[in-house]
Amino acid sequence: MNKPIVAVTMGDPAGIGPEIIVKSVIDKEVLDVCRPLVIGEKNVLEKAIKITGLNLKIQEIENPDDGNYNSNILVLLNLNNIDISKFEYGKVSATCGKASFEYIKTSIELALEKKVAAVATAPINKIALQLAGIDLIGHTEIFGKLTGTNDPLTMFEIENEMRVFFLTRHVSLKQACEMVKKERVLDYIIRCSNALKKIGINLNKPLAVAGLNPHAGDGGLFGLEEIEEIIPAIEEAKKLGYNVVGPIGADSIFYLARKGLYSAVLSMYHDQGHIATKTLDFNRTIAITLGMPILRTSVDHGTAFDIAGKGIADPTSMIEAIKLAAKYSIYFNN
Amino acid sequence: MNKPIVAVTMGDPAGIGPEIIVKSVIDKEVLDVCRPLVIGEKNVLEKAIKITGLNLKIQEIENPDDGNYNSNILVLLNLNNIDISKFEYGKVSATCGKASFEYIKTSIELALEKKVAAVATAPINKIALQLAGIDLIGHTEIFGKLTGTNDPLTMFEIENEMRVFFLTRHVSLKQACEMVKKERVLDYIIRCSNALKKIGINLNKPLAVAGLNPHAGDGGLFGLEEIEEIIPAIEEAKKLGYNVVGPIGADSIFYLARKGLYSAVLSMYHDQGHIATKTLDFNRTIAITLGMPILRTSVDHGTAFDIAGKGIADPTSMIEAIKLAAKYSIYFNN
Repeated sequence: MNKPIVAVTMGDPAGIGPEIIVKSVIDKEVLDVCRPLVIGEKNVLEKAIKITGLNLKIQEIENPDDGNYNSNILVLLNLNNIDISKFEYGKVSATCGKASFEYIKTSIELALEKKVAAVATAPINKIALQLAGIDLIGHTEIFGKLTGTNDPLTMFEIENEMRVFFLTRHVSLKQACEMVKKERVLDYIIRCSNALKKIGINLNKPLAVAGLNPHAGDGGLFGLEEIEEIIPAIEEAKKLGYNVVGPIGADSIFYLARKGLYSAVLSMYHDQGHIATKTLDFNRTIAITLGMPILRTSVDHGTAFDIAGKGIADPTSMIEAIKLAAKYSIYFNN
Repeated sequence: MNKPIVAVTMGDPAGIGPEIIVKSVIDKEVLDVCRPLVIGEKNVLEKAIKITGLNLKIQEIENPDDGNYNSNILVLLNLNNIDISKFEYGKVSATCGKASFEYIKTSIELALEKKVAAVATAPINKIALQLAGIDLIGHTEIFGKLTGTNDPLTMFEIENEMRVFFLTRHVSLKQACEMVKKERVLDYIIRCSNALKKIGINLNKPLAVAGLNPHAGDGGLFGLEEIEEIIPAIEEAKKLGYNVVGPIGADSIFYLARKGLYSAVLSMYHDQGHIATKTLDFNRTIAITLGMPILRTSVDHGTAFDIAGKGIADPTSMIEAIKLAAKYSIYFNN
């Protein structure tokens, strides 16, 4: 059987995307599990190869299957969006914003056509995207829009440690508290369970729902959201046949998740899940977008304009994102 | 120089306190750094020695300095509160509640008289305390009251990893959001800094203040507490000469703390600090009560009535708590 092809979008050309990509596509662990197809710019990637001093040739292809995927060759779908004479590292620009959008758009088309098995994305710059007139604030929104998915699910994974979903994300903590409602919790339990199933996670282990308040409210002593919203949602999900437990206090749920007790954790707010994963392993925390017709993974760091073009950027997160895309794509596409 | 004497209170006799204590006082690492004086019950501890099968004799003393502290001897201040013929493991009772309070009271008296250098506490049962008519809900409140301290500070430490203070603790998350006020943040920055100094922590590294909202509010996009309350408090603290940084997003502050960048982290709410420490190392997360005239450390687990008397309780946390009490007592008392 052929290894899955993972499309790797180059991200904002002025950021660290190009250099972490050239470092990633020669990685043995990456090549062991997939055929990485870069979607980006030949001239910018050539510059990145030079900067990093790697022994790597670029093969331009039209059809993903035509690539000669090995440790000396970077297989590229070249979109020719950048005039290298005007290109500058670390600079926010409409050109780079537009280019980074085009890589994503192309990757989505290829994935929808089943020409690639999954997509792993390098970081983009939100302001550059705005300058280019693109009215979508980030990757998740672009993937949602272009795949016709309402509210895609973000899951964090640290391999061999844990998986974490988020009931709420980029809202204030007060607003997150307000959004902990029975209907929303139930909807997420159902969608997260289905998303886990879709990537082949064993659902004999329950999905664990975190409490919102200290000690999950301690029987109502410190907040009522558990009693009024979370517990009723869990009870209803159980009646519907879902394997779910909780609410479990946030000070122990991630410890228990690390011990392998759960299929995943549903955290109630952004930092609840982020603290657990990123404190444990900042660089190996990979974001996976689920609940869409295609599979996407992502580094969870930014464009790092301050160090772009210096060849010093750490590719660990990109490597892990590609490996995870490959791993789950096999279940996802069957 | 003599090693410091650390008073170790036995906790609720019906819980796992007695067995984790008999396992801890023979620990080589404990005996290397201190002289552990147990405050509790001879008959209950004899039972614990029998259950755990340890080769350990009890030496009853009146004066802490008279103990023959070594790996075959448990040095005990026997308070004689328990009638062993009526004693039952795993049972909540007024007698045990009263007894556990007496151990704490005695330890505080000895510490205030400088007869012991610090106190490490085994877990108590809050309901047993109530049954005994004691109107203080936990250790911190008892220590606060009996040492005349208003609002003692709780600090969590995982050795070689990080230290964490809490702006708020046992309140709902909504209420915690409401309590993030400039005056409170400033007061905590000052008191936490002073408390760190008192235990000999190098304040050349800043105290780092966590944000409340995702990405510390991202410039006001996700909540205004950073702009309206936290930043003004930090600015004022800096003017007063305190070495403090922040607000730093909770998804990176603990990762950076692990790298050794800060003297400590001031977290905004219970779970923010708990998730970071307890996910990393559940059993080695030690609570230290600071800002009082005496030093106290504690296991951060409960009485575990369900496994009490079986000899299977893990003493790791108790051992670490005693070691930490010993370590900081040297600076604290000079």
